Amino acid sequence: MQTERFTDPAALRRAIRQGAWTRPTRLQAPGHVQCSVVILPRTAGFDFLRYCQRNARACPLIEVTEPGDPEPRMSAPGADIRTDVGRYAVYRNGAQIDELSDIRPLWRDDLVAFLIGSSLSFDPLLEAAGIESSPVWVLETRLPTVPAGGFHGPLAVTMRWMTPADAISAIQITGRLPGFHGAPIHLGDPARIGANLAAPLHGPPVREIPPDRTALYWACGVTPQRAAIASATPFMITHVPGHGFVTDLRIEQFAMP
Amino acid sequence: MQTERFTDPAALRRAIRQGAWTRPTRLQAPGHVQCSVVILPRTAGFDFLRYCQRNARACPLIEVTEPGDPEPRMSAPGADIRTDVGRYAVYRNGAQIDELSDIRPLWRDDLVAFLIGSSLSFDPLLEAAGIESSPVWVLETRLPTVPAGGFHGPLAVTMRWMTPADAISAIQITGRLPGFHGAPIHLGDPARIGANLAAPLHGPPVREIPPDRTALYWACGVTPQRAAIASATPFMITHVPGHGFVTDLRIEQFAMP
Repeated sequence: MQTERFTDPAALRRAIRQGAWTRPTRLQAPGHVQCSVVILPRTAGFDFLRYCQRNARACPLIEVTEPGDPEPRMSAPGADIRTDVGRYAVYRNGAQIDELSDIRPLWRDDLVAFLIGSSLSFDPLLEAAGIESSPVWVLETRLPTVPAGGFHGPLAVTMRWMTPADAISAIQITGRLPGFHGAPIHLGDPARIGANLAAPLHGPPVREIPPDRTALYWACGVTPQRAAIASATPFMITHVPGHGFVTDLRIEQFAMP
Repeated sequence: MQTERFTDPAALRRAIRQGAWTRPTRLQAPGHVQCSVVILPRTAGFDFLRYCQRNARACPLIEVTEPGDPEPRMSAPGADIRTDVGRYAVYRNGAQIDELSDIRPLWRDDLVAFLIGSSLSFDPLLEAAGIESSPVWVLETRLPTVPAGGFHGPLAVTMRWMTPADAISAIQITGRLPGFHGAPIHLGDPARIGANLAAPLHGPPVREIPPDRTALYWACGVTPQRAAIASATPFMITHVPGHGFVTDLRIEQFAMP
C-alpha cells in the first residue's frame, strides 16, 4: 500500500510504524520539516552538541529530546523516534553493524535523539518552483568538519543537478532556509570538494554529471554517520540516508525573509 | 583614555584587559560580532546547550569553547575570556554575588564559555542605515522560555525606540541576522509582554515611551542570567549587560540573503 504522496505527516509516520511505507520519504508530506536522526547516550551529548554548533551548515538542530524519552514532543507530539523512521543504521565502535526498522529493543533510559533539519524538507519547495531536479545523491567529500570532543570526520553532502537557471533559483530558495542546510556549499565540479561519485552513500553510482546540467552540493545530516565511522564512536543510531523523520512542523516557520 | 570609537576589536579587547576601557561596548568596533557571555561547568553544558537550542531566538551560539581553555579560538584567537570583558557578573545558587573586571581567580579546568550573538552587533548597522534609535534598555518580560534540564526562566529583551519608518527598516535589517536574535519578538506596548520598564536590567528607569516613537523588543542574551536566578543555578559567570565580548568575526559572515 505504497501511496504515491502523503499529505499528513502523522499518517505517514503511522504507515512507516506499521510497515506499510518502507520507501524513502522524499517529496512526502510536502511543506513539513523532515529530519536526519542521530541517537546517542547522554554522556556524548555535550560533545555532539558542540560538534553540531561548530558544523551548523551540516547539523542544524530542530529538536533535542529528553534523555530516555522516545517522543519528540516539540516537533512531532505523539510520535515515537524508535519506530517512526523507515530504516535505522546502528553504529558500534566506528562500524555500521545493523540496519533495522524498529529500534525499541535497543532503547535505553539514557538515549537522546538529535533531530537535524534535512534537505528532504526543501525538495518539495524546489518542485513547487518548477525546478526539474535530478534525484538526490548523498556523497562523502574530502572537506573536513570542525572537530569537537571525540567527533571528527569528513563532510557529507547531498548532490542534485539541474539547468543553470534552475540552479540559480535553487540557491536563492535554499539560502532562506538555514534550518535545512541553507544554500549549497559548492557548485559544479565534484572533484573540487573530493565528492566520491563512484560510491555514493545513497543513490546509484554516478558516471558523469550531464554536461548541460549544474550540480549543486548541500551540507548534509548524514555527516554525523561519517563522524561515527571516522571517530570510532562507541554507539550511535541514525536514520538511513533517504529515510527522514517527518515532523509536524511547517517549513515556513523556519524560513528567513 | 576612553577613546570615542575603536575600529580594531583586538585593540578594544586589549584596552578592556588593561582597564583603559571600562564603558559599555555599544557602537564599538563596528562591523564586528559582539557576544553575550555565559560561563558554566562542563557538567551543566549538555543542559545549557539544549536550553540554547530550545530558545534560539534568545541564545544563538557563536562559539562554545573547549573546557578549561580561556581562549575563544574560533571567534577571537589570542583573546582571554577571563579578562577581555569589561564587567563580569558572578552568580551562585541563583543570586548575583559579585561583579568583577577579571575572573582569573575564579577560573577552573572544567569551565566552558558559551558565546551568544548579541544585539550589540547590529547597532552599528542600524546607525549606518541612518536609523535614529534610542539608547538600549535590557528588560525582563513575563514571557517564559522553554525549559531544558535545570534551566528555566523568563525571556529578557533589549528595547529600542525609533520612528515607525525606522522601525520598519530595523525589522528588515535585523530579520537577516538570526545569529544576533533576528527580527524583534514584539513591537509597541510593553505591557503585552510584561516588560518591566520600572526596573530595567540595563539603562535608567523608563517613565513612558515617547508617543511618536515605536518600541521594538529583541530577544536578548541576558536571558541566561535570569535563568540562573529563576533556576537557582549553582555557578554561572556572565557579562554585565552592555559589556559585550568583542570578537574578530565580521557580522556579514552571519547575514542571511
